[in-house]
Amino acid sequence: MIRCRERLEVIALPFVPRVERGDDVAALARAALERASVTLADGDVLVVTSKVLSRAEGRFVDLSRVEPSERAAALAAEVAKDPRLVELILRESTGVSRKAKHVLIVRHRLGFVGANAGIDASNALPASAAEGSGPWVLLLPEDPDASARSLRRALEAASGARIGVVVSDSFGRPFRLGTVGGAIGCAGLPPAWDRRGDRDLDGRPLEITVTALADQVAACADLVAGQADEGRAMVVVRGLSFPASDDPASALCRRPEEDLYA
Amino acid sequence: MIRCRERLEVIALPFVPRVERGDDVAALARAALERASVTLADGDVLVVTSKVLSRAEGRFVDLSRVEPSERAAALAAEVAKDPRLVELILRESTGVSRKAKHVLIVRHRLGFVGANAGIDASNALPASAAEGSGPWVLLLPEDPDASARSLRRALEAASGARIGVVVSDSFGRPFRLGTVGGAIGCAGLPPAWDRRGDRDLDGRPLEITVTALADQVAACADLVAGQADEGRAMVVVRGLSFPASDDPASALCRRPEEDLYA
Repeated sequence: MIRCRERLEVIALPFVPRVERGDDVAALARAALERASVTLADGDVLVVTSKVLSRAEGRFVDLSRVEPSERAAALAAEVAKDPRLVELILRESTGVSRKAKHVLIVRHRLGFVGANAGIDASNALPASAAEGSGPWVLLLPEDPDASARSLRRALEAASGARIGVVVSDSFGRPFRLGTVGGAIGCAGLPPAWDRRGDRDLDGRPLEITVTALADQVAACADLVAGQADEGRAMVVVRGLSFPASDDPASALCRRPEEDLYA
Repeated sequence: MIRCRERLEVIALPFVPRVERGDDVAALARAALERASVTLADGDVLVVTSKVLSRAEGRFVDLSRVEPSERAAALAAEVAKDPRLVELILRESTGVSRKAKHVLIVRHRLGFVGANAGIDASNALPASAAEGSGPWVLLLPEDPDASARSLRRALEAASGARIGVVVSDSFGRPFRLGTVGGAIGCAGLPPAWDRRGDRDLDGRPLEITVTALADQVAACADLVAGQADEGRAMVVVRGLSFPASDDPASALCRRPEEDLYA
């Protein structure tokens, strides 16, 4: 069973430099930890925003070089969006969940549902951008679980600590305004915390049984992270205690046939 | 503008006693803070689970004394739930969002959408329960924003600190498995953190502009809280910095006519 200690610390690693294509994210994380005087300990979870990995993987796209398909052009006209962006959104997704003027919510190829397949134009300019090129957008990482696993391996080897890694992104939500951090990649910690077997103070089995651990860790980290604040793109959440797990972040995605809102 | 410091602390106040009808929640909070040696400081947010307020307000219902309406009986047969529970769910809600076998998702009279109008049977037994009575369930607090405001006033008067209070509950979600903490009551902090005006590292306005601050604070707290773990029903989140706000938690609820998933 996972148990939390009574205190968590949520530590933003300041001054993470702008990541460029080919950068070694594990080396950047080690440097950031050292600058912040944080020595990784068992149970620490490193939360890395998807932007960091996308940039390191070179997932930049120059919209001026994208040729929209007929389907993308028609959909773009319907929702009043750039047809080149819609083309990328369709390539990155397996289906459209909802559409409206200026809104395109899709099921991403990674399994989750979100606006624009997570593609946006913030911090999307590559160092190599030629004068007059663009506008540029950034796709989500190719395989955030694999990136999380690789980052975990490197940091565990360097530190000797047993840690977790979460790759986070910002999600909009049905019913509720404002974005929250969520997990799109996961390594080392169970994305879902199964509390079946826990009992209430009367000894009754708890009715709420599975907590979205990785999403809540990402939400926590989002409170101190930020794209605008000095590049706080890496955050350590300290104080959890969890068994190692190989479950991917997609363990948090409902299957469409079990989703009343698909 | 709200800014976060580089570190947050999330501190569960242990051994909060079982709350009973009529208990003074502010007095319980002051005692719990003192036991945990936590002195409230400017910017602290006290997160209280809805259970605490529901129990203090005596929102217990003995199902054996509930008379289901015809509508509740029909709906209960359709979704295979206890008709007396369905009667309470309908009384607490303004409309049904989705229904399926064993599932009833409604828009609560407080504005948010969730399963069973937040009514459940965990920790729902009143001290006054007579032998053979029940089963018992607990409704959500009558007015969680008002309770949050009153708790804030009492704790600010006692401490001299400017704080926020969030009343939290566990929410299921479309698309994603597992529950997350969310805010159903709010006082002193802006439930939504409007980042319009912030810029990315290239000086481009950020595309994601409003963060669900109170929900993320509730999610943070949920990681250390719990109904089963020694009654950790109160949590302090320390390290945020925010302007005072009178916005209620319902500022986070999308209006049905603007919700593509209503």
